[in-house]
Amino acid sequence: MDIKTAAQTAKAASIQLAATETTVKNKGLQAIADALWEKKQAILEANEEDLTLSRENNLAPPLLKRLKFDETKLGQVISGIESLVDLLDPVGINLSARELDEGLDLYQVSCPIGVIGVIFESRPDALVQISTLCLKSGNGVLLKGGSEAAHTNRALAAVIVAASESAGVPAGWLQLLETREDVNEMLKMDQSIDLLIPRGSNVFVKHIMDNSNIPVLGHADGICHVYVDTDADLTMARNIVVDSKCQYVAVCNAAETLLVHEAVAPRFLPLVKESLAAHSVELRGCPRTAALIEVNSAAEEDWLTEYLDNILSIKIVSSTDEAIEHINTYGSGHTDAIITANPSTADRFMDLLDSGNVFWNCSTRFSDGFRYGLGAEVGISTSKIHARGPVGLDGLVIYKWKLKGSGHTVADYADGTRTFTHRPLEK
Amino acid sequence: MDIKTAAQTAKAASIQLAATETTVKNKGLQAIADALWEKKQAILEANEEDLTLSRENNLAPPLLKRLKFDETKLGQVISGIESLVDLLDPVGINLSARELDEGLDLYQVSCPIGVIGVIFESRPDALVQISTLCLKSGNGVLLKGGSEAAHTNRALAAVIVAASESAGVPAGWLQLLETREDVNEMLKMDQSIDLLIPRGSNVFVKHIMDNSNIPVLGHADGICHVYVDTDADLTMARNIVVDSKCQYVAVCNAAETLLVHEAVAPRFLPLVKESLAAHSVELRGCPRTAALIEVNSAAEEDWLTEYLDNILSIKIVSSTDEAIEHINTYGSGHTDAIITANPSTADRFMDLLDSGNVFWNCSTRFSDGFRYGLGAEVGISTSKIHARGPVGLDGLVIYKWKLKGSGHTVADYADGTRTFTHRPLEK
Repeated sequence: MDIKTAAQTAKAASIQLAATETTVKNKGLQAIADALWEKKQAILEANEEDLTLSRENNLAPPLLKRLKFDETKLGQVISGIESLVDLLDPVGINLSARELDEGLDLYQVSCPIGVIGVIFESRPDALVQISTLCLKSGNGVLLKGGSEAAHTNRALAAVIVAASESAGVPAGWLQLLETREDVNEMLKMDQSIDLLIPRGSNVFVKHIMDNSNIPVLGHADGICHVYVDTDADLTMARNIVVDSKCQYVAVCNAAETLLVHEAVAPRFLPLVKESLAAHSVELRGCPRTAALIEVNSAAEEDWLTEYLDNILSIKIVSSTDEAIEHINTYGSGHTDAIITANPSTADRFMDLLDSGNVFWNCSTRFSDGFRYGLGAEVGISTSKIHARGPVGLDGLVIYKWKLKGSGHTVADYADGTRTFTHRPLEK
Repeated sequence: MDIKTAAQTAKAASIQLAATETTVKNKGLQAIADALWEKKQAILEANEEDLTLSRENNLAPPLLKRLKFDETKLGQVISGIESLVDLLDPVGINLSARELDEGLDLYQVSCPIGVIGVIFESRPDALVQISTLCLKSGNGVLLKGGSEAAHTNRALAAVIVAASESAGVPAGWLQLLETREDVNEMLKMDQSIDLLIPRGSNVFVKHIMDNSNIPVLGHADGICHVYVDTDADLTMARNIVVDSKCQYVAVCNAAETLLVHEAVAPRFLPLVKESLAAHSVELRGCPRTAALIEVNSAAEEDWLTEYLDNILSIKIVSSTDEAIEHINTYGSGHTDAIITANPSTADRFMDLLDSGNVFWNCSTRFSDGFRYGLGAEVGISTSKIHARGPVGLDGLVIYKWKLKGSGHTVADYADGTRTFTHRPLEK
């Protein structure tokens, strides 16, 4: 099947899927969970094949680790699907209800977006998570995974398609793409694809954003900051800086820049330097920082860099407003934290910061769908519209307006025969 | 001021405006309403100047009518602003609240989008409506109106800026652009502008969508349908078709295509033809229609055409599903209505139709922010994300996640020292 046909097939299925009952979608999810376990052998063998090829191609060890899909990973995705069954169906919820006039009732009802195009990195578990989130939310999906995982992805997609369709989910709702050319074709299909979710390097995400008319949900950079205010508890600040930087350096919600108020910098910087040294973190500081502790010197581009590594840039600021200004200028709108005992300083920081996740006295690493209690997430968005921060099921739905009348015409209101009541209705 | 500076100025102001109290914003709105009335003379004179120039340039009479801004129009926009003062501030609302753990509370709080770029047609009242909606929702705004209205727009913008800023609204929140080159520059400023709302011809809107990375809210086409089902009350159907087509032909929510179930076509088509003839509507029918009533013949492109004129295309279908398929194929996802006495047919139509507004037994012309009771609207969206259908204040806000802790770090949850409670909090 060519990509255009695949996209149109998914679109046609998505129309039916939008009207599919919750019970059928849940039956489909349970059937997928069961079939993944039944077909375990075939899936693990496919993954072995990918691993062997990737080792031959000298894939880097961290990538090999992401690619690996063993019985433990399988168990995790299956239990993820089972939790998804238990979640409330996000489709068909009345968001608002209003009587416009007697017998003329308006309902704003949640519905799926349509067809989601997802391009993801080499982790095969992402395929299962994303496709089942799309199914629960009633969306068709086009999936393109990393080429290293081609055999695993093919095995997983085959199981998901067969199991869900046998449970009554509309045929064609999931389409697997296999080549990079497929992705380039996909970017042009704004007639069939309603939303793109690219997951991967920031160069890749920027490429997608620059080359498609289809709306994109996701984030390119995660340049996260911790700001230690003059009123900070310095022990708390130290723990939070270490957690934000070091708990897992390779992820988008890890901190890349530390901002310190000048009033506490002389006391705080030696403290935090000691703790970060224990984690082998390289420090790059502004000139004022360099006057207080031994650091490499930070260049302008350091403030714009997502290291994803054991490196932290440090800047001393003269006020909370200077910290806010720095973050709004150099940050990526992802996640930024303030450490302070002063509630009004914290409020000012959280209100004036143009970021999706603004934290007070806690680690930037909490910015995550699971930790937020959203269930699984499709990604973290730094968009300013639709969905922001960790995006779960709610980000995969929109709404339609349903207006139910009994012969009403606008002419009657234009000539004053009738007037609108605009009375709230029970939802 | 060049456009880049203007956009950056609006961005800086928008950060302050996001944290501006409701009372200040409302004071600003009231000051604008008062000042527009006080400066009436200057505004009406500026409009006279535009009208004189446009008459000299032989602007078409309907455009002259839209350009005209007299005391009546001024009174209407002022009363619009006063209703806006009374509306609930859409910013700062807790959309969800959840305890993640003891002392670690997550709030999803509505906030402005940031800076909105609006490009609108020749009606000067649009400038007032849009800028005051942006102010109420805490957004900075870049405005570009029709060049025919240049003097009026300049006068209105000057009054709005002076009055709002004197009431304490952050300086620079509104920027007026004046040339077409300004618009092209604006499309590149994805660093400063968060959302574009183009209003105008579909060619123009498509141009914007094709030439910017900034998300676009709006609609290109309004190809709306009325489907008369086999179970329709034919008198009701006739009234609704006439209203949908004729009540105001030049607008996006007017019907362009009539679909009729084959079982009622022989009775219904002569009826509706008679009524539409009284409004001088040209009919263009499919071959089956032409076999029943005298019509011009419809070509494939008629199903794809937004006439905005006294023309209606007609197609006979064999089933509700064929009607749904036709609308999902040729429609623009704007507004489509079914006329039927059968509730399950109506539900099927409303569930399977991929349109923002799906109506049962009422006119497509109801698709409008004022009629929906949303207050004023910034436009009607056929997007599949963020906001759909008539977009009022709610479409100009998004949310941020605020997480308030007391020293919490992720390491404690990773090593099992602590576990998440994920307990709902009072909002």
